[in-house]
Amino acid sequence: MTHAWWLDPCRAPDEQIRAEALARQQQLTKPAGSLGRLEQVAVELAALQGQLKPTLDQVWISIFAGDHGVVAEGISAYPQEVTGQMLLNFVSGGAAISVLARQLDARLEVVDLGTVNLDLDLPGVRHLRIAPGTANFARGPAMTVEQGERALQGGRDSALRAVQAGARLFIGGEMGIGNTTAASALACALLGCAAVELSGPGTGLDAAGVRHKAQVIKAALRKHDGIAGDPWQALLHVGGLEIAALAGAYLACAQEGVAVLVDGFICTVAALLAVRLNPSCRAWLFFGHRGAEPGHRRVLAELDGEPLLELGLRLGEGSGAALAVPLLRLACDLHGQMATFAEAAVADRPA
Amino acid sequence: MTHAWWLDPCRAPDEQIRAEALARQQQLTKPAGSLGRLEQVAVELAALQGQLKPTLDQVWISIFAGDHGVVAEGISAYPQEVTGQMLLNFVSGGAAISVLARQLDARLEVVDLGTVNLDLDLPGVRHLRIAPGTANFARGPAMTVEQGERALQGGRDSALRAVQAGARLFIGGEMGIGNTTAASALACALLGCAAVELSGPGTGLDAAGVRHKAQVIKAALRKHDGIAGDPWQALLHVGGLEIAALAGAYLACAQEGVAVLVDGFICTVAALLAVRLNPSCRAWLFFGHRGAEPGHRRVLAELDGEPLLELGLRLGEGSGAALAVPLLRLACDLHGQMATFAEAAVADRPA
Repeated sequence: MTHAWWLDPCRAPDEQIRAEALARQQQLTKPAGSLGRLEQVAVELAALQGQLKPTLDQVWISIFAGDHGVVAEGISAYPQEVTGQMLLNFVSGGAAISVLARQLDARLEVVDLGTVNLDLDLPGVRHLRIAPGTANFARGPAMTVEQGERALQGGRDSALRAVQAGARLFIGGEMGIGNTTAASALACALLGCAAVELSGPGTGLDAAGVRHKAQVIKAALRKHDGIAGDPWQALLHVGGLEIAALAGAYLACAQEGVAVLVDGFICTVAALLAVRLNPSCRAWLFFGHRGAEPGHRRVLAELDGEPLLELGLRLGEGSGAALAVPLLRLACDLHGQMATFAEAAVADRPA
Repeated sequence: MTHAWWLDPCRAPDEQIRAEALARQQQLTKPAGSLGRLEQVAVELAALQGQLKPTLDQVWISIFAGDHGVVAEGISAYPQEVTGQMLLNFVSGGAAISVLARQLDARLEVVDLGTVNLDLDLPGVRHLRIAPGTANFARGPAMTVEQGERALQGGRDSALRAVQAGARLFIGGEMGIGNTTAASALACALLGCAAVELSGPGTGLDAAGVRHKAQVIKAALRKHDGIAGDPWQALLHVGGLEIAALAGAYLACAQEGVAVLVDGFICTVAALLAVRLNPSCRAWLFFGHRGAEPGHRRVLAELDGEPLLELGLRLGEGSGAALAVPLLRLACDLHGQMATFAEAAVADRPA
């Protein structure tokens, strides 16, 4: 194995700045605590950025795509070629995340870790061609050690490009037909849950489809016994290339000092994987949206993650995180620009 | 009584455009329904604006301020002069809503319906000077018929200015020490609820303070018996000048064809008043934020209102609504700018 860079320590938040930011919040012209979650978020970002008045001008979005061999088991409502078609849609500007990135003035990059068509060559997409998707984990391990390391490094490379571009917030999105099945299997292995607890409709399975999906996952977990409690082995056996890349990106962001806004179910499972690989990354994770996928709530609870939004989305692509960006930015604006009681000559004492 | 303009019919949504917008949503490159609430919001705005691709470039925010005689009963944690001090803070740019309006590129106007200091003369504030706040409704009616009509008209005038300025979305905010007490009393009268059900801490009462507040409301409702089921009389007897203005603004917006984004507890009570006065205004109301005030959930349920956000805010000023503006705008952007399956050549059939 190469040097396991992902085990290196993550940056520590600045506790002195956190205290100062908290004190500032108490002085702003509003009843104490009346901005709720936005106060906590602003204080947290101040501690992470090491500056009393944090800013989120530069936002970076990386979409990681990968195909999944387990689709052969009939666990998705969409055909596998949609992964590649959607890559084109991302870079052409027609996908949801493309519209959101444009409106948020965020940088959007699209990274193909490995789709079924390894010859795919789309202008504007970074094709890493690690494998033609994962192997079918119903029959064997999803990926080799080398593939797992390359996928993790692929995510890290995105994070380093974000740092280079001056990003203060990193969003990872994902695209991959079949990836809620991989994410559910991985979460089951990490949490020791039964497959039925964490299996949901994904992009649109009916009840019979969800039951079948849970059975496929249950059988796979029995086949790959011994991965429970070992996040690295769990990733290799039942994970996905884009899930590995997400975890790698989150870990590298935490090491480099860039806050992360985690998207929906699949990204949250990747965040859980990252935290299990290296717990010191947790401080850098914010959560954008609680999605409709039933397992999401369970994984969020394990991470003690409280998303800013709950709008019934189940799209992925990073869209739920992107939608929360204006809230984080406005939290920073309120924290930085509101007048204090002293500045505004407003009475702040109870009558 | 003057012509009761608020009883005139409200604009009807365009059902043909609604059907077309719904059809468009089914063609965008995403699993059907995967943008959750944002799809519904975009379709609704299309029907209200009568155009397939709605826009929300122009947002108008009116803050309505008024004082409350019932403060003499000791129901607020803050002294009454804060109302006037905060008016200055609003126009000076230091209040939460001032920061939000600036960041959202929204027009912000501040309307003083009547504060304890009737001589107050602040540059940038519209002083209507209807009364030096309401009378103490623990002892008699809060306002006269003429005062109620003037306050309702004051709100309508704001809505008409918003229309004149080309606004596509109207947000009403409020400021008035003691106004959660008036809002709770009014909601109790409209809903036939007990005072304890709808009394909460407002800007910061402790448990004993909340109990006292509920007793004041209970006694007042007994004193003003006969107002139950009569929204107009309920407003006059236990309401507030700024609450009347909010209701007037909402009703005029619905008549003029401008969508409304309702803020927290007090604004939602004003929305309930507006709907009770003229039910046809309901179609024009969106709800920004479910606040921490316990009665808010009950009033929202009565209106079948589902706020976009829940962030633990309890500030008022229109801040919870303002924070939801980016979501509405992004819903419009997604609806208008995403590619269709046909445009992007993406397969949309289940495998």
